[in-house]
Amino acid sequence: MSSKLFNPAATIKDVAAQAGVSVMTVSNVLRGRGRVSEETRRRVLETAERQGYRPNLTARALVERKAPTLALMLSCITNPFYPEFALAANLQALKHERHLLVCNTDHEPDRGTGFLEQVAGSLSDGVLVANNADLPIDELRALQERGIPVVISVWERPDEPPGIPCVTFDSEGAGRLAAQHLVEYGHRRIGAIVGSPKHGIHGGRYAGFREVVRAAKIRQSTADERFTEDSFEHGYEAAKDLLSARPDLTAIFVSNDLPALGVLNAASDLGFSVPGGLSVVSITDIIPARQSRPGLTTVAIPTAEMAEKGVNLLVELMAGRATEATVVHTSAPKLVVRGSTARLR
Amino acid sequence: MSSKLFNPAATIKDVAAQAGVSVMTVSNVLRGRGRVSEETRRRVLETAERQGYRPNLTARALVERKAPTLALMLSCITNPFYPEFALAANLQALKHERHLLVCNTDHEPDRGTGFLEQVAGSLSDGVLVANNADLPIDELRALQERGIPVVISVWERPDEPPGIPCVTFDSEGAGRLAAQHLVEYGHRRIGAIVGSPKHGIHGGRYAGFREVVRAAKIRQSTADERFTEDSFEHGYEAAKDLLSARPDLTAIFVSNDLPALGVLNAASDLGFSVPGGLSVVSITDIIPARQSRPGLTTVAIPTAEMAEKGVNLLVELMAGRATEATVVHTSAPKLVVRGSTARLR
Repeated sequence: MSSKLFNPAATIKDVAAQAGVSVMTVSNVLRGRGRVSEETRRRVLETAERQGYRPNLTARALVERKAPTLALMLSCITNPFYPEFALAANLQALKHERHLLVCNTDHEPDRGTGFLEQVAGSLSDGVLVANNADLPIDELRALQERGIPVVISVWERPDEPPGIPCVTFDSEGAGRLAAQHLVEYGHRRIGAIVGSPKHGIHGGRYAGFREVVRAAKIRQSTADERFTEDSFEHGYEAAKDLLSARPDLTAIFVSNDLPALGVLNAASDLGFSVPGGLSVVSITDIIPARQSRPGLTTVAIPTAEMAEKGVNLLVELMAGRATEATVVHTSAPKLVVRGSTARLR
Repeated sequence: MSSKLFNPAATIKDVAAQAGVSVMTVSNVLRGRGRVSEETRRRVLETAERQGYRPNLTARALVERKAPTLALMLSCITNPFYPEFALAANLQALKHERHLLVCNTDHEPDRGTGFLEQVAGSLSDGVLVANNADLPIDELRALQERGIPVVISVWERPDEPPGIPCVTFDSEGAGRLAAQHLVEYGHRRIGAIVGSPKHGIHGGRYAGFREVVRAAKIRQSTADERFTEDSFEHGYEAAKDLLSARPDLTAIFVSNDLPALGVLNAASDLGFSVPGGLSVVSITDIIPARQSRPGLTTVAIPTAEMAEKGVNLLVELMAGRATEATVVHTSAPKLVVRGSTARLR
């Protein structure tokens, strides 16, 4: 049985006439407002259903000064993290009866700015910024100052809130878990490949890693580290460079799964056996992490939860129930051991 | 230098007053309509820029009876084909000054239907349906009959147009190229894993494969074939089943890259060496096809071109310059040889 589609020829006047009520009553029933008897409510809904009438969301948005969409800004839809995040955000937005307008900035800040100019406050009345969306924080603050609700999910520095409502996770804890796993497996010669500058977006993950390595009295120098960009290709190139310079490493910490998958390929191309000759651990747990051979040992962060809480926070903010200082935390990261790590022989 | 964001307090009246022209003239300039002198045009644009005025797209949509978005329906955003398609569609829509509303049906037809009810004809005035979006063709025809512009991209049966404007590619040609590659490499014991029923969405790809196999006088029976679903996991399971039953196969044709990546893992888990002991070829050329080890030999189809032509066709249709019978073809598929295929030893 197929669902009934809407009939664009039907109007609210038709529904009111057929149901024998005023246009205002139909409007109240469909928007769940005002006082209407149960009997009238049912008659209006049945009439609207029979006529295939659906309120025009664009028109309603204008009347209510409310847009029917939320905007999601992300930096790169072909990075597998973002489709997983966007899917969860999409489903959560639907629960709030909003559609999700996805803007892919594609690492071009101008594109994000252009999108915000056209969308924020008109087509969408709230903006969710996924981390790494290439927008200067000052532009987000300017948007906020103009009264446009903005939420950042994910903010990786829970201790240094951005002055914009945000969803965070324990990025240092994730880095510590990954490092502890390597230390417990007996590794002492450990390299690091970080998908951002040292104090950039993966700075918290790196700081957690360094804390554990230092506590274990493992000597580590800048020769063991590479700071690069957060992509498969950059992970591949950084690992080729690092492993050529330091073939004695027995393990590599990578700050994110996508570059870590590139590291696995580089190791394979250079003749390193993973995990026999080299262990690789990273952070996130995107779908391809479990599809690679060997499977990638990684610290899972709660991607869907971060998206859902981001949407919820945006809705709360629009309702005046959150402030610029609101910080929402998510579940603790968890180590997922797969085939890319082994005890040092 | 950061770009200037819009100032929601600025109105078209302010711009008109400052520029010393009528509201109608400002509107004409911003919409590129009517006759306006070059000098006036420049003054209006400079004034609008200085005041941070941007026309409200939602309001303009109502005035023009035109929505500022196009809707893209797809079945599964975490299938890597769709983000690649969505990115190209997004950029192309921006060229037409439209944003793209992405609806992920997630293999639930009801979700697609619900989205269409709310969006088609109001928030979006055109719908682009990516193949496999899980919507019965009858619902799309019903939408079309109600006057909502609908385009299908990609339709895999160029010889059997759906009665809805569509973008196609030579799916049989793609299947032939993949099969020819295996035959030229000397393979005679070839299995097939198809990500749909025999006459389903991959039916054209399978028919092309069969044509070449038959012409090469290769014996093939249903024992060599598995018809399954279009996912990594289904490809993995089908290959485990097929290779356990027919360990003498030297090559497998897979109708799509995502299940083919699952086939590579199944081969590895069963101890088959690819390509030494087993060659695997498929169709599409998604990004992970070149990231896998071995790289996946595949027949590249023009994903970005299909998305761009789909958006263009939708815009043409909305302008009355295409009909229900319009079929737009795309560039010929091309074989990309990587490490997953080898000559039979």
